[in-house]
Amino acid sequence: MVLGIGDDCALLALPAGEQLAVSTDTLVAGVHFPESPDPFLLGQRALGVSVSDLAAMGATPIGFTLALTLPSAEPAWLQAFAQGLDQMARPCGVRLIGGDTTRGPLSLTLTVFGRVPQGQALTRGGAQVGDLLCVGGELGDGAGALPLVLGQRQAPAAIAEPLLARYWSPQPQLALGQALRGKATAALDISDGLLADCGHIAAASAVALLIEQARLPLSASLLALLGTAAARACALSGGDDYVLAFTLPPERLAGLQAAGWPLRVIGRVAAGQGVQLLDEQGQCITPPARGYQHFGSDSD
Amino acid sequence: MVLGIGDDCALLALPAGEQLAVSTDTLVAGVHFPESPDPFLLGQRALGVSVSDLAAMGATPIGFTLALTLPSAEPAWLQAFAQGLDQMARPCGVRLIGGDTTRGPLSLTLTVFGRVPQGQALTRGGAQVGDLLCVGGELGDGAGALPLVLGQRQAPAAIAEPLLARYWSPQPQLALGQALRGKATAALDISDGLLADCGHIAAASAVALLIEQARLPLSASLLALLGTAAARACALSGGDDYVLAFTLPPERLAGLQAAGWPLRVIGRVAAGQGVQLLDEQGQCITPPARGYQHFGSDSD
Repeated sequence: MVLGIGDDCALLALPAGEQLAVSTDTLVAGVHFPESPDPFLLGQRALGVSVSDLAAMGATPIGFTLALTLPSAEPAWLQAFAQGLDQMARPCGVRLIGGDTTRGPLSLTLTVFGRVPQGQALTRGGAQVGDLLCVGGELGDGAGALPLVLGQRQAPAAIAEPLLARYWSPQPQLALGQALRGKATAALDISDGLLADCGHIAAASAVALLIEQARLPLSASLLALLGTAAARACALSGGDDYVLAFTLPPERLAGLQAAGWPLRVIGRVAAGQGVQLLDEQGQCITPPARGYQHFGSDSD
Repeated sequence: MVLGIGDDCALLALPAGEQLAVSTDTLVAGVHFPESPDPFLLGQRALGVSVSDLAAMGATPIGFTLALTLPSAEPAWLQAFAQGLDQMARPCGVRLIGGDTTRGPLSLTLTVFGRVPQGQALTRGGAQVGDLLCVGGELGDGAGALPLVLGQRQAPAAIAEPLLARYWSPQPQLALGQALRGKATAALDISDGLLADCGHIAAASAVALLIEQARLPLSASLLALLGTAAARACALSGGDDYVLAFTLPPERLAGLQAAGWPLRVIGRVAAGQGVQLLDEQGQCITPPARGYQHFGSDSD
């Protein structure tokens, strides 16, 4: 960063041969998080969710701007919120470079900036027939945590804590995204749910994605809380995972696995369109109903 | 732009030797604009206000992201809003590169991006003792228009229309900002009011700014609506002008004037701190009370 907060604009320098990656996300109280959230957890989660979009492009984070709208300025609230932001900003390597604070109903818009070598960004449009479909970790924990977040359900600490941590402290897979540059043919981060997000890759790449239901990686906590069927529903349709999904030529798998990256093969790319879910006999099955529980009525 | 809407991030390329300028602004219904604004005018004004920050840095606009929060998605509203954005985007040379749409109380956050040759951005911190203090046009019209915008006051069309145009269609002084690169020693755009914004230059540059009240450029419409005293109050404290204020070594004035730039000398830079308003005898006078009328109670 060349010039930060306090002038009309922030100024960023970009190394020669690199491109800037930019993403904007808004979170609204009562829609994307509870009406009166813990400010530390809100700050931590909001930044993690936003930085995950940089991971999905294979970008190296640079900084972020924050537009914060608040009903009133309470110093203790703001301090805790800033500490939560900082908690996520440090491991992600981002700095606050500018922002705006306004009065109004609680909401926040983060715009994150990263850099990526020219032509090497991971997009959604390059999946090829024959590629493997992989994800970067276990799915469904964020959605499974929602009833706990909302206080609608109780669970023993050994089950609840890992799920709540996945919800309130999503870990952007920045290193994995950067490792996939030049290797993955398409990538994104799962925010809307595996089926919906695979649909985005299928559409952008003009291919079909086949998902083997039995290969969905599910955490022990999620299985203990919900059982297999509901855990699968969270993994398929829950959203809020912030785990990378990507496609990869089969010959590149062994090298990435040998390097220790946590990739899990869950399916493959075929000719056609859309997303199909397969049972253990390879038969197409109807996905379970959407498991995602929203804070608002019908928004996203 | 390398990659636009529809992936996890937008990608921007930046020419070698240039820096990226970034600014974020949030506008909240009932605080920064009426609760039920004309959507065309809202889009036009919101983008103009944001791009004005690029003008203040001497930057060349590239694009913007829009985070729009709406109570409900009405196609006619969205279409008119998009047309208003487009109306401002075209002459400014910016394109929408990404965004987010969420449900909630009406507000919008725009993040604008521009480019500026390395080291040539206009900041607030370089004003030198002996410099002239200049502005890029008439002041106070935006604030003077507010009672008309709110329907609290009527005026003949010949008076009302120019003022309403200044409010709803602020014209970022992009060409002037670029022309001032390498010439102005400090610059910003007047959004909080001349006195407050000159205070920002004075603080960042560690100098005093002296403003001659009689040299404030006031429009015929504003004078006809309010008379001299209230028009001056709008110019000094009203805000919403989106005209550049800048400091300049005296020997650079003639060249810029000869090139036809609309600069008006309104004072000078002296040793000391803060902003002083001078009468025609050069005596320090107390500024008039703040003339700015807000939509909300005490926010900004």
